[in-house]
Amino acid sequence: MRVLLISNSGRPYLEHCRGALGEFYGPAVRKLGFVSAATLADPEFYFTHAKTGLEPLGVELEHVHWERQPLKTLERVDALFVGGGNTYALLDRVRSSGLQDAIKERARTGMPYAGASAGANLAGPTILTTNDWNIVALTHFAALHLVPFNINPHFKDTDPAMAPGSETREDRIREYHVRNKNAVVGIEEQTMVRVDDGIATVLGQQRVKLFRVGQAPRWFTAGERLPL
Amino acid sequence: MRVLLISNSGRPYLEHCRGALGEFYGPAVRKLGFVSAATLADPEFYFTHAKTGLEPLGVELEHVHWERQPLKTLERVDALFVGGGNTYALLDRVRSSGLQDAIKERARTGMPYAGASAGANLAGPTILTTNDWNIVALTHFAALHLVPFNINPHFKDTDPAMAPGSETREDRIREYHVRNKNAVVGIEEQTMVRVDDGIATVLGQQRVKLFRVGQAPRWFTAGERLPL
Repeated sequence: MRVLLISNSGRPYLEHCRGALGEFYGPAVRKLGFVSAATLADPEFYFTHAKTGLEPLGVELEHVHWERQPLKTLERVDALFVGGGNTYALLDRVRSSGLQDAIKERARTGMPYAGASAGANLAGPTILTTNDWNIVALTHFAALHLVPFNINPHFKDTDPAMAPGSETREDRIREYHVRNKNAVVGIEEQTMVRVDDGIATVLGQQRVKLFRVGQAPRWFTAGERLPL
Repeated sequence: MRVLLISNSGRPYLEHCRGALGEFYGPAVRKLGFVSAATLADPEFYFTHAKTGLEPLGVELEHVHWERQPLKTLERVDALFVGGGNTYALLDRVRSSGLQDAIKERARTGMPYAGASAGANLAGPTILTTNDWNIVALTHFAALHLVPFNINPHFKDTDPAMAPGSETREDRIREYHVRNKNAVVGIEEQTMVRVDDGIATVLGQQRVKLFRVGQAPRWFTAGERLPL
């Protein structure tokens, strides 16, 4: 399987990762599907915005809209980009539309999958290490499982949005590991993890922190492989 | 119903809110029940720690341990203090132990309920505005509903130092209101909301931000009533 996990889409939209996206998709990808299902705002606006970020790659962007025959659109595209937003809304919509199984099947047979933020979370076994709130009261959490580890995008060692004395991301991942055993990969902004057939490599400008049960967390930077 | 919602327990433990707790419980409360179910660490250690913070009030602290006949302990106590930790673990345990219904019934007939952080979240209609992660993969979110609004403890307003693309608490509450209609009350550190028979008053050193659907968010400080 071929997966590119992106922490944030950045501003200007996708500029920091466009080079990595171009290399990841390669010249064979002509039609690229954009999954807008994470947005709680207007999906059409989101798709138009995505075009500005993705069409410079030389691809034709198709809108994989969860309510408009998404399985037919998925059949037509060579690769996917799953945008950010609310991870719980995203999983809810891709599951109920049938996209979850269809994407899994396409990815299993070689379709490149790139996702930013919520779209990165969706590639893990579950979405339970997202930063988002479960505002849709979702009761199922199993995601695409294209990679064996859970993802925490927008990772920060200390988060200025947090009040002093409240839990850090590392505290939360430690709590997650009280009940769950799979690795968690925290990806800082402007940073990516690219997975090619089980080999996970860090790309981009910042760092990735790997959390495994019973082991000290460990940092990795661009070019390094995650020992998974 | 009588409820005291505390954002954080602070350091030294409960010092910032001990005066408010003493006034809230009043002289009739002799035996105070401490609910430790939010902790993912050792509940006995947590209870011992809680004694140092709560026994200066002149009460005898009883451990309402979710696995040790909690309903019998609940019968014996005059009031409750629900400690912080992971909100999803807390709801899971109070529900499966029968404490959820029993606490609701006692609170309905006048028992004072105070909760810090996760313990404050538990008093709302749902826990879906907690900052915690759902590390126990909980699939039910309805909480005690002692107050009509949801709570976001450890609230912090937009921070100009935040990385672009990171959602603020306000962004998350706005997302919550795309799908949910009840008010959300963000409580800053060292700050409380006391509710006496439907009258909600701010106490403490910082501020409370009230979010209602279709209205601009509004700040309140000590002594002010929330228009709920």
